[in-house]
Amino acid sequence: MANQKNITAGIIIIGNEILSGRVQDANIQHIALKLNKLGIFLREVVVIPDVEDRIVDAARAYSKAYDYVFTTGGIGPTHDDITAASLAKAFNREVEFNQTALEIMKARYGDIELTEGRKNMARMPVGAKLIKNPVTSVPGFQIENVFVFAGIPEVMHGMLDFALDTITPGDPIISSAVHCFLTESEIAKGLQEIQDLHPDLDIGSYPFWKMGRFGASLVVRGQDQQVIDETISQVVELIKSLGGELEYEKI
Amino acid sequence: MANQKNITAGIIIIGNEILSGRVQDANIQHIALKLNKLGIFLREVVVIPDVEDRIVDAARAYSKAYDYVFTTGGIGPTHDDITAASLAKAFNREVEFNQTALEIMKARYGDIELTEGRKNMARMPVGAKLIKNPVTSVPGFQIENVFVFAGIPEVMHGMLDFALDTITPGDPIISSAVHCFLTESEIAKGLQEIQDLHPDLDIGSYPFWKMGRFGASLVVRGQDQQVIDETISQVVELIKSLGGELEYEKI
Repeated sequence: MANQKNITAGIIIIGNEILSGRVQDANIQHIALKLNKLGIFLREVVVIPDVEDRIVDAARAYSKAYDYVFTTGGIGPTHDDITAASLAKAFNREVEFNQTALEIMKARYGDIELTEGRKNMARMPVGAKLIKNPVTSVPGFQIENVFVFAGIPEVMHGMLDFALDTITPGDPIISSAVHCFLTESEIAKGLQEIQDLHPDLDIGSYPFWKMGRFGASLVVRGQDQQVIDETISQVVELIKSLGGELEYEKI
Repeated sequence: MANQKNITAGIIIIGNEILSGRVQDANIQHIALKLNKLGIFLREVVVIPDVEDRIVDAARAYSKAYDYVFTTGGIGPTHDDITAASLAKAFNREVEFNQTALEIMKARYGDIELTEGRKNMARMPVGAKLIKNPVTSVPGFQIENVFVFAGIPEVMHGMLDFALDTITPGDPIISSAVHCFLTESEIAKGLQEIQDLHPDLDIGSYPFWKMGRFGASLVVRGQDQQVIDETISQVVELIKSLGGELEYEKI
């Protein structure tokens, strides 16, 4: 199990509003936690502006590098929405009005409210598969291994759940953590020795600051609960052997 | 002014803990807003794991593409801290114990508490300039146009302020927004016409969802307050001409 090829993913955030600082990202962590449950390792995230070349380059690179790619933002009828056209270009396809998407939108908006701007939301690469949108009905789409979602979190969450239902999951990625008031430097050497015993696990050490003291959260991630539990016990022994104080509250 | 070459920046987040979903990013927006004040346009952000090749590749690419690069995370004495070595490699330099950094740490920790793990925090590329750390004293460093910060927000914020003091600022990037209960699709065409009149400005439209209704925030960014104010007036006229309801509260 630990030796199976990991299933991997990357996220492309098409987000002028993140780069300008106007909006705090609320999508990365949400997607990351969902992927853990499906045994998919998130390997990279990039935030780029709504610029065709950047979207094309990122989509091609990520599609090749990772099993699954999720994009958020840049779909909808805004004047700077060039995502559908860029994704078509990335995979050497034409853009068309997706007839099923148009039908869905007609059912929702009726003929009168289906403005030209709204119609543009049905423009998708030829051969795109629709991703259901439980909030505003306007669908996202999948092209090859790239899932294209809206950026607004309420809408993205629904699309993501729909998309993930179509993916064959691996063993869930689980993690356990212990927290202590040792600094990372005090525990670094011993932790490396434990990591060397368990090359299949990700063991990370993350500093925190609580009530004027520095400490470290020691996190073990993997796909086998028993091995993780044994490793956490080794980490706890290490902390005790160094005279470290455990912190039992969630950091 | 609008035609001066824009000063640009990229952020490299060395962050297994972001990719695993354990931690919500708290650094991108903070840095983006500080850069706006200095007239520096944030153009790209990437989140990568603590893997040497990935850090080397990202540092080289961003250093070449942007005027300033900021990295967060991956410094400190943890077992997976390979940032200093990777940055040295990216710029074809050796790694050494930075003597000034060691002196600062000795003054803080004394000889006894200056463990091997802590000493490793003074390992930096040859020729690196120190970045003051007002919280834990252990400095970050600058190599060429890359500023290397700790990831823990309390520490990063202090290092960032120190680093930004050394940068010659441009005209601050300012923005104004109006919010309305039109959908993006209704306003897309008119907004594009306004954008075409002002190629120097970034005009963005961002959907929101409030009390069961969709709306759009229309944001104008640039470096000339008067031009921005005039453009906002044009956007307000557009909204009124479309029968749109303005929303005066901050979204």
